[in-house]
Amino acid sequence: MKTRDGHALTPLEIQDLVNGIVDQSWPDYQLAAWLMAVYCRGLTEDEIFALTGAMAFTGAPLLEPLGIVDKHSTGGVGDKTTLVLAPVMAALGFPMAKMSGRGLGHTGGTLDKLESIPGFRTELTIQELRQQIDNIGVAVVAQSAQLAPADKRLYALRDVTGTVDSIPLIASSVMSKKLAAGTKHLVLDVKVGNGAFMAHVEEAMQLAQLMVKIGQHHHRRVSAILTTMNQPLGFAVGNAIEVNEAALCLQGQGPEDLHEEVVTLATELVHLVTKESLTEARKQVLAVLDQGKAWDMFGRWIDAQGGEFHAVAKGLPLAPVVLVWEAQDEGTVRAMDTRKIGDVALNLGAGRHRLEDHVDPAVGLMCYAKIGRRFEPGEVVAEVFARSKESAEEALRNLKSAISWGEPTETDAHLVLGTVRPDF
Amino acid sequence: MKTRDGHALTPLEIQDLVNGIVDQSWPDYQLAAWLMAVYCRGLTEDEIFALTGAMAFTGAPLLEPLGIVDKHSTGGVGDKTTLVLAPVMAALGFPMAKMSGRGLGHTGGTLDKLESIPGFRTELTIQELRQQIDNIGVAVVAQSAQLAPADKRLYALRDVTGTVDSIPLIASSVMSKKLAAGTKHLVLDVKVGNGAFMAHVEEAMQLAQLMVKIGQHHHRRVSAILTTMNQPLGFAVGNAIEVNEAALCLQGQGPEDLHEEVVTLATELVHLVTKESLTEARKQVLAVLDQGKAWDMFGRWIDAQGGEFHAVAKGLPLAPVVLVWEAQDEGTVRAMDTRKIGDVALNLGAGRHRLEDHVDPAVGLMCYAKIGRRFEPGEVVAEVFARSKESAEEALRNLKSAISWGEPTETDAHLVLGTVRPDF
Repeated sequence: MKTRDGHALTPLEIQDLVNGIVDQSWPDYQLAAWLMAVYCRGLTEDEIFALTGAMAFTGAPLLEPLGIVDKHSTGGVGDKTTLVLAPVMAALGFPMAKMSGRGLGHTGGTLDKLESIPGFRTELTIQELRQQIDNIGVAVVAQSAQLAPADKRLYALRDVTGTVDSIPLIASSVMSKKLAAGTKHLVLDVKVGNGAFMAHVEEAMQLAQLMVKIGQHHHRRVSAILTTMNQPLGFAVGNAIEVNEAALCLQGQGPEDLHEEVVTLATELVHLVTKESLTEARKQVLAVLDQGKAWDMFGRWIDAQGGEFHAVAKGLPLAPVVLVWEAQDEGTVRAMDTRKIGDVALNLGAGRHRLEDHVDPAVGLMCYAKIGRRFEPGEVVAEVFARSKESAEEALRNLKSAISWGEPTETDAHLVLGTVRPDF
Repeated sequence: MKTRDGHALTPLEIQDLVNGIVDQSWPDYQLAAWLMAVYCRGLTEDEIFALTGAMAFTGAPLLEPLGIVDKHSTGGVGDKTTLVLAPVMAALGFPMAKMSGRGLGHTGGTLDKLESIPGFRTELTIQELRQQIDNIGVAVVAQSAQLAPADKRLYALRDVTGTVDSIPLIASSVMSKKLAAGTKHLVLDVKVGNGAFMAHVEEAMQLAQLMVKIGQHHHRRVSAILTTMNQPLGFAVGNAIEVNEAALCLQGQGPEDLHEEVVTLATELVHLVTKESLTEARKQVLAVLDQGKAWDMFGRWIDAQGGEFHAVAKGLPLAPVVLVWEAQDEGTVRAMDTRKIGDVALNLGAGRHRLEDHVDPAVGLMCYAKIGRRFEPGEVVAEVFARSKESAEEALRNLKSAISWGEPTETDAHLVLGTVRPDF
């Protein structure tokens, strides 16, 4: 009722609420009503700070952080950034132990991508995880259910009560998991555009500022980078196909936007940890990529988690039915319906409609279209890797309808749309 | 999500929703979120009309109405109006079959009051009910669970999700039950003040206008009278003690405000049915009271439902521990905390904190204080009828603190604060 009437809850009331979420004494229907009240009325910054803290530290937070740096993306299409960023940071000497989620809907999950590598294990014990971080400085594992259990319950409920896209609820959900994991330096990749959760820069900026403030309030160094999701990141969308592209990127042969995104996020993290200038930080990042140190680290990481690195090195196999789309006429890409492209991969079998769905590692697509890119007749615009002719044809049909042609507006092509840094 | 974003649902979507409420396919948590969205965003008039209709006619509405007239009160302290109004209407030749509820919280329920009469049965079969209406023209029974089942589920959920005091939800709840019962002429007693659900005339007027419009939309003649709840109605608050006061009123010896309230509501109903002028209607109402016809009808009614009328006629017995509050000094009643007075009766045992609580018929209080009434030293301000000395003392202490003394503001003493009539 207080939230409903726009009155702020006290920190004690919020802690009571979170206790009730975790010990199940608050029933689903009361939480659902509260979530909708939050959706409609919002929360004050102090309430958000208290809620995030209570969600983070109720349950079994990690008392000793596993790594030095961490990264979170609000989710996009073709986002294989973690696969490249994690070995880059480890190669720089900044351990990164990332707890990750699975994909749902049109955005893929890092765990699903990693599991397309034969033998790769994402369920490590906390001891195995600590040992791997001590040995090589990088690990990506499934989020523990004991970490931020209140968020787990709230998130499931938001999903079925129309209360997902509320900025205070998104911010507290993301940041509670990061606070619980304990890492001191965090870069947030806030995706903006027609393939992202947030369609507009204004709301993404609001979310980014809020998450950075939550971090500051809880004594973490957090920066947020707004990056475009008006087109997929890189060319590859799927699971094995994205691992292959990440591997190319680590060898200096990846798509330009993916490379730039990784370098931007890594530079920000180095800056957060060392307080060196961005120029200096960027130099160090480019060096570990150019010198092959990040690629070496990638191999050690895949090995350490039981994956067959030789399979990655020669390129993971893709689904057998391949359809290629060649441009008929010359033309320039005006815009892309990025969510639709994500749905194409999803419907090929690369993602989940429901949590219990099985993911096919080998299906996916390469989309070489980028806003503003000019194609000559005969040039390959996209390729689809499917299990059947029918699904391949349907995928290509939908892919074609997701791309429009003509003069693009310049701003749509920018990768980085804004940065939010804490006040040191 | 549509409601959340302020978009109107179509009548078909509302019917689907109500079907889902009745067949349980909509889970509690989704309904709870929807109720909170309605609380925060409101509903359009068309949505409210559709919701009320769908709730009324999904389940087992009465195809043939039981009576000609009906009345509903939004609930107040000391409100025994139905006990007097029902025999008045029957005596006038307008059958009134009222389905009533039990008391919860600080307001009493008509069923609980009637059940303080030894032998009185409130659970009649629909056949018994029709026969009694045919024979004498008056009956008051418990609401059937099959009547407006969607409202039953929604109401229970509103009670535990902080969504009770939403004008669209109150209006559709009240009117759905009345539409389901089928009665064509209805007077609504909308209580306003510190002992009512609605504290302010503005919001009560809004609710009254909405309910009258819903009635018009569904081809019922509905008027709403706003009456004050800045003091209890009459002197008696409890169960048997209110029956005794109703009996006095029917014999022309009741408190002035109760008499005036009954006459006002009855006049309105006669006016709605016959379209006679209010002056003419009022004359008829006063006549059946003055000539003892309403009192005779009261006796036949109590008899018909198995109650011992002779016990009522000589005054139902009250609880044995009596404390009397006599004024120490002279003084004028400035204001009363009516809800607190309701709570005094509740805590004596006259009401329910929870639905499963047992109600004590014999406890209660007489509060002779009325706003603007002047007391001389030694005059009785109030009496408490309790089961123990302790509870009596506590009751009197709380009662004293509920009454403040000094010059009243004139408007507080008005009984009728407004009337809303349909456009004939």
